[in-house]
Amino acid sequence: MPVNLSTPRKGSLLPIAGIELGIASAGIKTIDHPDLVIIKLAEGTKTSAVYTQNSFCAAPVILAKQHQNKTAPAYLVINSGNANAGTGEQGLQSAQACCQAVAELAGVDSSSVLPFSTGVIGQQLPVAKIQQALPIAYQKLTSDNWFNAAHAIMTTDTVAKAVSKKIDIDGKQVTVTGMAKGSGMIRPDMATMLSYIATDAAVKQSVLDKILHTAMEQSFNRITVDGDTSTNDACVLMATGQANNDEITRFNSAAGQSLYQVIAQISQQLAHAIVRDGEGATKFIAIEVNQGVNAEECRQVAYTIAHSPLVKTALFASDPNWGRILAAVGRSGISNFDLSKVMIYLGDVCIVDGGQPAQDYTEKQGQKVMDQDEITIKVELGRGEAEDVVWTCDFSYDYVKINAEYRT
Amino acid sequence: MPVNLSTPRKGSLLPIAGIELGIASAGIKTIDHPDLVIIKLAEGTKTSAVYTQNSFCAAPVILAKQHQNKTAPAYLVINSGNANAGTGEQGLQSAQACCQAVAELAGVDSSSVLPFSTGVIGQQLPVAKIQQALPIAYQKLTSDNWFNAAHAIMTTDTVAKAVSKKIDIDGKQVTVTGMAKGSGMIRPDMATMLSYIATDAAVKQSVLDKILHTAMEQSFNRITVDGDTSTNDACVLMATGQANNDEITRFNSAAGQSLYQVIAQISQQLAHAIVRDGEGATKFIAIEVNQGVNAEECRQVAYTIAHSPLVKTALFASDPNWGRILAAVGRSGISNFDLSKVMIYLGDVCIVDGGQPAQDYTEKQGQKVMDQDEITIKVELGRGEAEDVVWTCDFSYDYVKINAEYRT
Repeated sequence: MPVNLSTPRKGSLLPIAGIELGIASAGIKTIDHPDLVIIKLAEGTKTSAVYTQNSFCAAPVILAKQHQNKTAPAYLVINSGNANAGTGEQGLQSAQACCQAVAELAGVDSSSVLPFSTGVIGQQLPVAKIQQALPIAYQKLTSDNWFNAAHAIMTTDTVAKAVSKKIDIDGKQVTVTGMAKGSGMIRPDMATMLSYIATDAAVKQSVLDKILHTAMEQSFNRITVDGDTSTNDACVLMATGQANNDEITRFNSAAGQSLYQVIAQISQQLAHAIVRDGEGATKFIAIEVNQGVNAEECRQVAYTIAHSPLVKTALFASDPNWGRILAAVGRSGISNFDLSKVMIYLGDVCIVDGGQPAQDYTEKQGQKVMDQDEITIKVELGRGEAEDVVWTCDFSYDYVKINAEYRT
Repeated sequence: MPVNLSTPRKGSLLPIAGIELGIASAGIKTIDHPDLVIIKLAEGTKTSAVYTQNSFCAAPVILAKQHQNKTAPAYLVINSGNANAGTGEQGLQSAQACCQAVAELAGVDSSSVLPFSTGVIGQQLPVAKIQQALPIAYQKLTSDNWFNAAHAIMTTDTVAKAVSKKIDIDGKQVTVTGMAKGSGMIRPDMATMLSYIATDAAVKQSVLDKILHTAMEQSFNRITVDGDTSTNDACVLMATGQANNDEITRFNSAAGQSLYQVIAQISQQLAHAIVRDGEGATKFIAIEVNQGVNAEECRQVAYTIAHSPLVKTALFASDPNWGRILAAVGRSGISNFDLSKVMIYLGDVCIVDGGQPAQDYTEKQGQKVMDQDEITIKVELGRGEAEDVVWTCDFSYDYVKINAEYRT
């Protein structure tokens, strides 16, 4: 059961002028489940993308990067059920064959097609099945298809993840719609996080890039389920320019900031949805670390807490075991760390005051916070003014069950 | 159930001339369970010790370091059931009170007593109970008490961990006996790994220090259960000099190497015992990484694999899910990593060859290795000649159970 997350209403997902999506069932997962998506980008659409940092990146990631360096993308092709990762030279040829098939349907060069795959690692992509289903997806291209596309890219996700927002930029209505999949931030064999966000705003390429990278740092790059990094992660931001606003040429302009804010909100909402639907998750946890010398050390502390199996199992058990949080802070590797300034809060309850157990703390207060399904752990380092935040979930029997039994 | 590990035979644990151990039940854990140990070191004993790297180190660790800097230790006092960690100023006073009580019994200065505690974090030490039981332990001091002491320092350990070995150094018989506790390398609230190793060898202090630090790097510093670091970890090496060998003055001499080898073997055996008795462990895993530029990057890869919840749950499920190992190698953060040279083996079976799935690999081969309860994962980086090894266990339902239900 995802934590306070349900399937978006179909009507809440708004089409983006210049973006069409087509869905088909290629039979990669099971014969009747949609597992193939084509996204068509109108001419003039600007595209920005970020990919996994894993050195073992999947074949479609390698090819998508190459294609994006060559020419402006006109189509994306996405399959779920098979990650085409760890598949060697044959995997690259398979990804290329998918791009080629779309290119032939659309009459474009194959380098203008970006491929994406998610699903089981280490099995060759069933290219023939995909080639057979692509014409069906291509024929069904329509702008009002985000709801179906968000379902077609799911793997072990228990709910689809998508959201739309409208804003006004210089008197023009601008729309942003995004979707994501992932259920275990980082799950090499389900190979993992994919996100596609589109807007009709007119925006310069360099500003679009800056918006994507900045939004990522406050969303997808701040979540973790298990600390493992996928071979296939990708996030694509597309801007069709059909809202007829004056082209946004500066990130720091009012219009640039408006667009950035709404894209950051959507990114964060989708990133949170992935954690809420995290494998076996029963709680949604925000870890806020502030008063650091720099944001990097704040993240270091936050990730040490977020990845501690002891903290995560205590959260699962609703056990206000503050000693585990304190010990995680202590081993996070910060240099010249003066513990006598450290404060730790569970929700609003101070549990560690000046590096020592808070005098007024009672187990009852801690239990009250722990019994909630959304919990904030706040750490004040007392060293400076920087801050950062990481979102994660707890660690349950079901995490072990899902990951121990996935292939069997 | 620990993995291929049973309680040592009582008769197999050899006394060390110059070392006496006394045990009592202070009622910290339950009234009838021994939880207090005094170790008396004969005059002239040289002592070397290493302590937790956690910034939040427990009160006894702070005090033990101070005392060791002042004078040669004459007594160690160890309690289980309470870690005296996260206990602030009062915790320091409690640790000092324990040292003082031993000092008064023995007629020595309290700074010659080193305190150690292991057990629950964040509760004040029941000093009165300990003070009351110390005379009983003191009266029972005897050299043939390692078996009982190894049991008295246990917390969630399911078996006691101790071993003895004899060697010949320059025609003299030298004996080494060691004991350890820990069941989850790194378990802040059970606060965790304690190890005491004694020998009757005569050895110069600087050589003893070098032996301890070198042995640690091949044993306790290469094991991990869950990546969390305790607030109380300590390892103490004592040499009484009563074997009447010529004092060993150089680490690299034949005698120095002989002593080092046997202490390294005992350290490794005790360290492996901790992993074999790891919380919820069903398998004992060695992760060997070689052909690295330096040992550090080999460790980095090994720990990334060892800490991956996805790899650990696959090991629990006996699932030859090589994609998870491959993805962990890929995200380990090595710079300028040429994947086309990477080889990965599961036991003797090659699963990744030149960064790609091995052509001859069959699931049946992988399954055969995975079905064993002792598994070696070997990674060849193809970058140099350095190597390192890390030992860990799998990640089971019982790990979650033990850590979710520990306090409830």
